[in-house]
Amino acid sequence: MLNSSKSFTRLLGELKKLPGVGEKTALRLAFHLLKSPESANSLAEEILEVTRRVRFCSICFAITEDDPCLICSGDRDEHIICVVEEPQDLMAVERSHAFRGRYHVLQGALSPLNGVTPANLRIAELMKRLGQGNTSEVILATNFSVEGEATALYLTRLIKPLGLKVSRLAHGIPLGSDLEYVDAATVQRAMEGRNEL
Amino acid sequence: MLNSSKSFTRLLGELKKLPGVGEKTALRLAFHLLKSPESANSLAEEILEVTRRVRFCSICFAITEDDPCLICSGDRDEHIICVVEEPQDLMAVERSHAFRGRYHVLQGALSPLNGVTPANLRIAELMKRLGQGNTSEVILATNFSVEGEATALYLTRLIKPLGLKVSRLAHGIPLGSDLEYVDAATVQRAMEGRNEL
Repeated sequence: MLNSSKSFTRLLGELKKLPGVGEKTALRLAFHLLKSPESANSLAEEILEVTRRVRFCSICFAITEDDPCLICSGDRDEHIICVVEEPQDLMAVERSHAFRGRYHVLQGALSPLNGVTPANLRIAELMKRLGQGNTSEVILATNFSVEGEATALYLTRLIKPLGLKVSRLAHGIPLGSDLEYVDAATVQRAMEGRNEL
Repeated sequence: MLNSSKSFTRLLGELKKLPGVGEKTALRLAFHLLKSPESANSLAEEILEVTRRVRFCSICFAITEDDPCLICSGDRDEHIICVVEEPQDLMAVERSHAFRGRYHVLQGALSPLNGVTPANLRIAELMKRLGQGNTSEVILATNFSVEGEATALYLTRLIKPLGLKVSRLAHGIPLGSDLEYVDAATVQRAMEGRNEL
């Protein structure tokens, strides 16, 4: 009987720690893994392999296998740094092919209520990079959430005195949107930021 | 840069093989695992542990750590066997606390179009168990899908000639339902199966 299998129960417990995985999904995943032991084993090995190999770049704190990462060690424009919250945000900017500079991953956003203060983010490391004098512009691409906006504001106050150009991604109507369905605050920001043709 | 991490890409590939996991969920899971290496390692180890320890019971083909499983080796009524498709169906019946007999897990349902024939299911093993003469009733608790119904029909024709009682779970209105929202076919079956009070 299943409930007596301690290892199965422990696997369920581990699966439930994953984001978006509850009791039912954990059961579904566990039974899937049991049904195909080879693919279960290769999944386990890839997880171990990734945690062994992948680390944070010592310059930009993106995740990488080689330190420094390909972007930091490559020939990309070092005068402009795009600051993002998480590695997945870096990937989103990379997918846009609109940026040829370097990155800095904060590994989070300010959220005092959740105990995330500037000391928990890679802000000191960012300031050290900016202090080296190669940088002329910092693009703040933190999320447009309360935490992301607060972080951008905090960084602006920190970086502006260094005499660097600080910018933020533009607000506006997403491409392909029906104006009818866009929320009022976004329309307001798009109106304020309208461009002359 | 992320896309250059081969182990990360391979992990994404393995995650995408899981049921209900697409590109975005795989990314989310992978980043979660990267952020907490300890929980990633314990997940990997539990997966390996489960595939090492858990096997199929040689009598009922439920998954178990000990062979035969606790139900088969316990003191439950051996005169009545409940036939289910998958181990998770066994768990669903157990949760109801309405059955004190034994189980037989077919490990699937007949689906000729997908290449699942009687030879792919644990039907021969079921017939062997029934042939031992301890059984007086077989409850067919395969799913109420086309495949499950076909499997139940197939098994009925196989088992009836042995002179055993063959039953199927009752159709009807689920508990707590609004009649208004129950599909017509279910109402029809509930009407046909109405009970005198």
